[in-house]
Amino acid sequence: MTPTPPLMSRRSALMSFAGAACAGLAACGRAPVAVLDPLPSWNDGAAKRAILHFADAVGAVNGMPADERIAVFDNDGTLWTEQPIYIEAQFTLDRARQMLREEPSLAANPPFAALASAGESLSSLDAQALGALAMATHANSDPEGMEAQVRAWLETARHPRFGVPYTQCIYQPMLEVLRLLRGRQFKTFIVSGGGVDFIRAFAQATYGVPPEQVIGSSGGYHYEMRDGAGVVMKTPEPGSVDDGAGKPQNIALHIGRRPLAAFGNSDGDLEMLQYVSTGSGARLALLVHHDDASREYAYDRDSEVGRLSVALDEAAQRGWTVVSMKQDWRTIFPAAPRGPGI
Amino acid sequence: MTPTPPLMSRRSALMSFAGAACAGLAACGRAPVAVLDPLPSWNDGAAKRAILHFADAVGAVNGMPADERIAVFDNDGTLWTEQPIYIEAQFTLDRARQMLREEPSLAANPPFAALASAGESLSSLDAQALGALAMATHANSDPEGMEAQVRAWLETARHPRFGVPYTQCIYQPMLEVLRLLRGRQFKTFIVSGGGVDFIRAFAQATYGVPPEQVIGSSGGYHYEMRDGAGVVMKTPEPGSVDDGAGKPQNIALHIGRRPLAAFGNSDGDLEMLQYVSTGSGARLALLVHHDDASREYAYDRDSEVGRLSVALDEAAQRGWTVVSMKQDWRTIFPAAPRGPGI
Repeated sequence: MTPTPPLMSRRSALMSFAGAACAGLAACGRAPVAVLDPLPSWNDGAAKRAILHFADAVGAVNGMPADERIAVFDNDGTLWTEQPIYIEAQFTLDRARQMLREEPSLAANPPFAALASAGESLSSLDAQALGALAMATHANSDPEGMEAQVRAWLETARHPRFGVPYTQCIYQPMLEVLRLLRGRQFKTFIVSGGGVDFIRAFAQATYGVPPEQVIGSSGGYHYEMRDGAGVVMKTPEPGSVDDGAGKPQNIALHIGRRPLAAFGNSDGDLEMLQYVSTGSGARLALLVHHDDASREYAYDRDSEVGRLSVALDEAAQRGWTVVSMKQDWRTIFPAAPRGPGI
Repeated sequence: MTPTPPLMSRRSALMSFAGAACAGLAACGRAPVAVLDPLPSWNDGAAKRAILHFADAVGAVNGMPADERIAVFDNDGTLWTEQPIYIEAQFTLDRARQMLREEPSLAANPPFAALASAGESLSSLDAQALGALAMATHANSDPEGMEAQVRAWLETARHPRFGVPYTQCIYQPMLEVLRLLRGRQFKTFIVSGGGVDFIRAFAQATYGVPPEQVIGSSGGYHYEMRDGAGVVMKTPEPGSVDDGAGKPQNIALHIGRRPLAAFGNSDGDLEMLQYVSTGSGARLALLVHHDDASREYAYDRDSEVGRLSVALDEAAQRGWTVVSMKQDWRTIFPAAPRGPGI
């Protein structure tokens, strides 16, 4: 099998070639050729136009200084699939089941007891039980150990409906937005309700977002010397819930300024989109609306996962961009498996 | 007066010129000219050699991937002067006195009462009282408002001994280290016990470190809608003390991986230097030792501000680089006033 070069390299090469061709034609006094579409997976429509208009406004001669160009992206349901359950919830369940198999006495522990009695059924495991399981399975590991666990799991786990690795259940149109904004000197951050160490395990290879540009929910950290080396361990202390008002609060703590663009898909992104869209100058606030049951999922006001109701109403009032997956996205998922280092 | 271009632009221009000259000479079959010294304010010695050796080792063909190149710098006493009192403490006192003048009834409030009775004398204001004053003066402002206050203060405040703005009381040799490492694709972070919003107000213009690469002590943040706009306000809740073990813990939270290089000057940097230096591969852990009373200050084991005792002992045991300001630094402060955008 011929290795496929990462998508970004291929596109960069095409763009450079197009640029060189334009320069050459201009030197011959001829009209430049049409510029390549930076959003080929987007159908023409209001959403695509809003994104391109924003990118042009910020990047214009009188646009925002490069230092101010910050864009924030929710992860679950915005950059990758969150149905039938959050991917991190599946990781937690798989990890907890593995721990139970290796150490059956754990079943005496409350969070594991709930899992043991639930069996393969998830319905009796509510969000609180899942949170307790996440704490129990993640605690007392260092972030590097956690990363290794997540990566090993992502190698073998498959999405129950699509049958592919979860890192292929990412949205090709959003990858193009990430790339477009980076090309305009934006720093792209993930601001997710998911666990920060979980996301950091794959964000660089999957989205090109480095660990220090991932903000997420977190517990405590404890530094200690262990066998002559300094290590930071995760602790089960309550930390920060990066959802709702927690998102702009964590943006203030981690980034220290109001971003220019925000991308979300659920009520948990409402405050982040408000915060970003009510600043001055060119702004972009965008919601991905999951309305494509045949190619992905259709859900909004009544969904347990990724409920979109208050934010959908506010989008209409404030003029935010609402993306119809069905109508605005030509493709949903990347065509080819994605290697590391995109 | 002819405007002086920022130092970095000038140096970059020189380097580029030298590079072009080398290429030209090489094409003519002649030996390349000597490379410009990237650390001109450092005297030749073990400290300078250790820094250059580290930069070469990381940047070598088999060195660390660019993504892994993270360097962390303490601020007070490492990048700028911290005597006779922390610059932020001076800001807090000046700000509190101004608030008292504008609103005399504040003197009934405990933290302000302590200040009012202390008058110009600082000795009766201990660290706890100062902390309470900082909370009282910083709370209920948004980070942008705080930044504006800090910048206005930095415009007019002068160091009591050197008579120049505090942003000129920064260490020229450390600016050269920041620049050298950035030239090797490092991301340079500040990890300081100081307040994160205080440092963010000047870090970009003074050190070239953007707000999202500043980690510091913090209180709480509260998001709310105010007059139709989303704002994040600072609250007096206890948050994170970014000192001692808090430094590696916050590095785990904000950066998500072990940095390759750490620079500090006091016992508050001990755990950060341990954490960084006990990783694998090329590492640099460096302590600035203030031993130059004539050009700056001389203090270590007995100082109230910036005490250096345990970390000095550990440096000897672990082979960390200890910089003698007196012997290793040819100059201490930048020669010319520094404009924004270095």
